[in-house]
Formats: sequence, structure tokens, C-alpha cells
Amino acid sequence: MLCGGQRQFFLGQTVSTTQHPTLKNDTFLRALKRQPVDYTPVWLMRQAGRYLAEYCATRKRAGSFLNLCKSPTMACEVTLQPLARYGLDAAILFSDILTVPDAMGLGLYFAEGEGPRFERPLRDEAAIGKLAVPDIHSELGYVTDAVSEIRRALDGSVPLIGFSGSPFTLACYMVEGGGSDDFRTVKTMMYSRPDLMHRILEVTTQAVIAYLNAQIEAGAQAVMVFDTWGGMLPAHAYRTFSLSYMQRIIAALHKQYDGADIPSIVFTKGGGQWLEAIADIGCDGVGLDWTTDIGEARQRVGHKVALQGNLDPMSLFGTPEAIAAEAKRVLDSFGPHAGHVFNLGHGISQFTPPENVKVLVDTVHSHSRR
Amino acid sequence: MLCGGQRQFFLGQTVSTTQHPTLKNDTFLRALKRQPVDYTPVWLMRQAGRYLAEYCATRKRAGSFLNLCKSPTMACEVTLQPLARYGLDAAILFSDILTVPDAMGLGLYFAEGEGPRFERPLRDEAAIGKLAVPDIHSELGYVTDAVSEIRRALDGSVPLIGFSGSPFTLACYMVEGGGSDDFRTVKTMMYSRPDLMHRILEVTTQAVIAYLNAQIEAGAQAVMVFDTWGGMLPAHAYRTFSLSYMQRIIAALHKQYDGADIPSIVFTKGGGQWLEAIADIGCDGVGLDWTTDIGEARQRVGHKVALQGNLDPMSLFGTPEAIAAEAKRVLDSFGPHAGHVFNLGHGISQFTPPENVKVLVDTVHSHSRR
Repeated sequence: MLCGGQRQFFLGQTVSTTQHPTLKNDTFLRALKRQPVDYTPVWLMRQAGRYLAEYCATRKRAGSFLNLCKSPTMACEVTLQPLARYGLDAAILFSDILTVPDAMGLGLYFAEGEGPRFERPLRDEAAIGKLAVPDIHSELGYVTDAVSEIRRALDGSVPLIGFSGSPFTLACYMVEGGGSDDFRTVKTMMYSRPDLMHRILEVTTQAVIAYLNAQIEAGAQAVMVFDTWGGMLPAHAYRTFSLSYMQRIIAALHKQYDGADIPSIVFTKGGGQWLEAIADIGCDGVGLDWTTDIGEARQRVGHKVALQGNLDPMSLFGTPEAIAAEAKRVLDSFGPHAGHVFNLGHGISQFTPPENVKVLVDTVHSHSRR
Repeated sequence: MLCGGQRQFFLGQTVSTTQHPTLKNDTFLRALKRQPVDYTPVWLMRQAGRYLAEYCATRKRAGSFLNLCKSPTMACEVTLQPLARYGLDAAILFSDILTVPDAMGLGLYFAEGEGPRFERPLRDEAAIGKLAVPDIHSELGYVTDAVSEIRRALDGSVPLIGFSGSPFTLACYMVEGGGSDDFRTVKTMMYSRPDLMHRILEVTTQAVIAYLNAQIEAGAQAVMVFDTWGGMLPAHAYRTFSLSYMQRIIAALHKQYDGADIPSIVFTKGGGQWLEAIADIGCDGVGLDWTTDIGEARQRVGHKVALQGNLDPMSLFGTPEAIAAEAKRVLDSFGPHAGHVFNLGHGISQFTPPENVKVLVDTVHSHSRR
């Protein structure tokens, strides 16, 4: 698996009708379709990240996090790093969820030691009125180029997941100008001027649809929508300001591409109370954070969707015995049914000991192989 | 209503057999007992706080937040301030949830602009082995003195609520040494050395029982346990490390004192998925954050407990019309049943415009009076 100027290496290989080699490990895609699998597939949110020394080395070479995101070759390189270490069953595009508002002109930057920030957050009606769907090809070509490059470099080993932030989550950052403890600014807008919130969400929804479909066209074999902040909403506001827009996205995504099904996953962190509603919007899989019992979740949603999750990322700081026990607890709670993609309930911590991830991945595979 | 050296004013009044005047407004206590009320009672978590100019003035005079907590006269003064502005149906002791670990010798302090910190967090087995239940009378007499003084100053106008942090929430601060984004230190202990976590929780549970019973003996007419961080746990760990200890506390509290019932409320922020289990531990009321639909919650727990909540505190940044609409939405969702105490789903923000609180309280009273 090589990134960068290695396209020529693939020219002589056996390829599918669309130049892609046949997928060798389709366990992840089969599980999302609730089809029988030999073992439970596993990947980890933020699996390419700071807990890996090789990631830190590439990031240092890139000079900044944004440079890393904007270089298809380096994004490809870090995407593949965790796959070289662990027997993971899927790769996920390395990128940031805020590329879309950046492409809309808000000016994404990362202050050292802080989270993401926007130079020009949406604070007035005029700016919101001018918001427009960016041209994906010209503004976000670095992302679709990365997708193509990763897909080629994976060489059919495991499927590639594309992703986007949810419209509500993107709107939180766009209005707040960064992260927040209480989301006071965006909620003030939501309660005072719901029309402005809906305008932001409308434009962002159109952009996310174009963005995810472009990722699929570039080679993404599944897509995931990360609704990081929807769980901060009251139940009724979640339906109005987050879920309904995700439903429109799911409806507008390519369901098949290049003759293959393209499954979709929706993950609302803190959304455990609303699983039935989320499972109803047409997605193939629903992500669970670590607070929901996955066995109870399965009973609630039945066979309608696959479930992805849901180990507490902090359990990776336990002893190897504790990690194995917690992984088995999740597997046993889900039970011997089709439709489970093992994952953490949130992104892996940068402080995670890398050797503990091996314990986890190996336990998931061995314990689930019956 | 006067605080401080005003005890003599009450000597000549008509008092109950225990020197307390008859309660004029028992709506809050009746609602907690699921008895009929003329209107839905309302109080607000953190109702005595920085959003009130008079609170900021008293705090400035106190010199520090801890001085304010440790002066019964000033704690009484700020407890009464919101009652002078709004028609609230209960007072809550002004104090901090970390008084108990402070009394255990951990050294509570507040760095300016940051949250609470401990000078000596619990990081090793020796320190955890030495942890002991503090003597409430000598170490926390400033709290029980404040309770007595507030109860006298209230003069029977509305009931007084005492409170404590939950053992798990206190343990989070005791092990982390302060707040945390990911609770990595305490979760590492929980997954690696559950025996040490249980030792901390055991001692803290005994301390909370003694502390809350001392508040009841000093005059608290209801008590509330704040489980601020239990919602960060996986479902099974919540039951083991948080709920089971709260259950033991509820079982050990005075159910009656001075001839009056003493109802108890348990509030786990982020605990909406576990309402049935919380309602089963013997408490009279269950607090709801703003993410749970209170009507669905009522159907889930039935008539077993009262429900307290659950307006999004951020809705107070909306227009008066939006605040009224959101308040009515909560009231209408609960419906015309006994057993609702209106509250926010979390503490009121320091940035809340005080005039908006009046809109809320008046709306709750007028809309619920049928």
C-alpha cells in the first residue's frame, strides 16, 4: 500500500471494470448490510491520529494539521498507518469535519493547543444571507483527490469510508466560531431566530450532499455523517434542527456507485435516547456512543439498521485483561446476530497506548469468530 | 427575610413545635409527593448565582467564592436573593458540591477563571487507604449553620432544599483533581483498579449520608443528590459505580424529620437512558436534563416518582415569546398530571438576562394554573 506518485504500479494489475481491484475483505460492508460475517469487523474513530508516533512524524513534516489535511499524499499516508499496525477492517479518509465551512469562506484555522476556529463566524443576517454551496471540484478537490489516492493505495485490502460533519454540527462551529461549553451563541440564534438557523442548515445540507456524493464518485465505499453536537439539543429541537437535515442527506446520497452498494452510517453522539428515530431516516448503520447498552439498542431498532460501536474509548487505558473484558462485554451484549460493526463510542484518545489497540482488535476478532 | 444576627426577631413569632413557622407555600413538597397542586412549582438550579448583580456584589464583599460558601450569613444572603426577585417555590442552600472532599482534607481551591481544583487529589493507594469520613459537626458546621440560618430567614415562605454531590461525581473531582474533558484519570482507575474506586465511593457514600442527614437535622425540608458526571459512564458502569451508591444513600436518609416528610431528588445529568433504573432506587423525584422529552419520561416511570425539569437553560437567551413557548412545551408535554417540579435541565448560565427569568417563572405559574 503506497501513497503519492504510485499510480503506475496498479496499471498492470487485475482490476474491476472501473480500475479498482476486487475487495479482499468486505466484512465491514457486509455487516452494515446485516449480512452474515465470519467475525465482527472493527475500525476505530480517529484511528489515524496522535496516539501513533508515525502519525506525529508525518504531521510534523506537514508543518500543520491543515497542511496535512490538504495534502492528498500525506492524508493518504496517515490513513494507511493504523492499517499497517492492526488488523482493522476498514480505512477512513483522513480529513477534518470543518472542510466544508472552510470552503464556504469562513477561514478555518487551528490555534496551537486549542481546537478549530473560524476567522469569520456567521454572526449577522447579511453574512448568513450570502452563504452559498461551495464548488466541490475547485474548493474541496484536495479531499476527493485524497479519497482517490487512498482507494488506489488500499489496493482492495479493506473498504474506504468517506465522511462529513452533520449540518447541525457544522452550524455549531460556524456560528460559535469554534468549540463551546454551552453553545450559547448558536442556541441563542436557534431560539431567537430559527429562520436564520434553518437558512444555514439548508445551505450546509446541500453542500454536504454534494461533498459526500463527490467522495463516493472518487472512491469512497461507504459514508458516515458525524453529528457530534446534536446530542446537546432538546429532543424536539434535535428532530427539527439536526435529524431532519440528515434525513435529507441520506435520501440524496448515491445508494449505488460503480455497481456496488454504498452504505451510510449516521452517528449522533449523545443520541442514545433517539435511536428509533435515527434508525428511521434510511441509513444502513447507526453509531452508538459508549453510554448506550448495545444489546438494548439492538432490541429497540431490530433488524432495521446495523449498529456501530460502542466501547468507552477510556477503557483502552485499562489493563489488557480489562480491555478484553470490556470488548467482550460489548460483543456479548450485541449477541450472535448480523449487523454489528465494532468501534469505539467516540474518537480514540491521543494518549492511548498503541499496544492496547492491538489487544482490542485481536480480542474483537477472536471472540467474535464462532 | 433576614440573615445573620436576626435570630431574636423570630423569638416572639408563632412557631411550630420545633421553632419553625408553618410553611406557607408547600407546592414544591406536594408535587414531589405526587399530590395535587394548584399550579406547577418552579425553582432553578443555581438560582443564586452570577447572573444576579446582587449576588456578584455579595461575592465581591466575601473576597472569594469559598469565603462566601463558608460564611453562613453570606450564604444565607445569596440564597434569598432570587426569592426576592421571582416567585420561586423553593430555596436551595447556597454551597459547593465539593465541600465534602474538602472536609476530607483534599484542599479545595478555585483558580481564577478555572473551575474547582484540589491541592491533594487521590492518586495512590496509600492516600485512598487513609481516606476517612469527616466529622460533619467540626468540619462542615459552616454548612449546617447556613442551613439553620436560611431556614430561619425563610420564615416559612417556601421550603429549603439541601444537597450533595453524588459519590461518583465527587470521586471524579477527587481523582482528577478538578474538572476534565475525558475523565481519563478516574476512568483509568475504574478500569484498572476498580477496588480503589469502590474504596473511594464507599467512604464518600458514608460521608454523604452523614452530611445530608445533618442538613435535614439543621432544617433542610428536601434533599437533592447531584450526579453531574454519572452520564459519562457506560450503562453497566453507571449502575455499578454511581447508581448503586446513590441507592444506598437514599435508603439511609431520614424519611421524616420533625414530623414532616423529607422527600429526596436524584439527578444524573445525561442519565435520560436510565430513568427506569433511577426511579427504582427509592427517591421521590428524578431530575431530567433538557435532552429528554418529559412526557415520554413520565410514561416510562409512571406515577412512581415525580419528575423535575427540564427546560434547556440556553432557551433563556431567546426572545420573551420563545421563552414562554419553550416553557409551555415542557408543561404541555408533562401534561395535567400530579408530580412535576419545573426546573431547568442544568444550572442557569451566568450570562442569563435576569428579566428573562421573570418571564419564565411567571409563564410556568400562569400556564399551569388551570
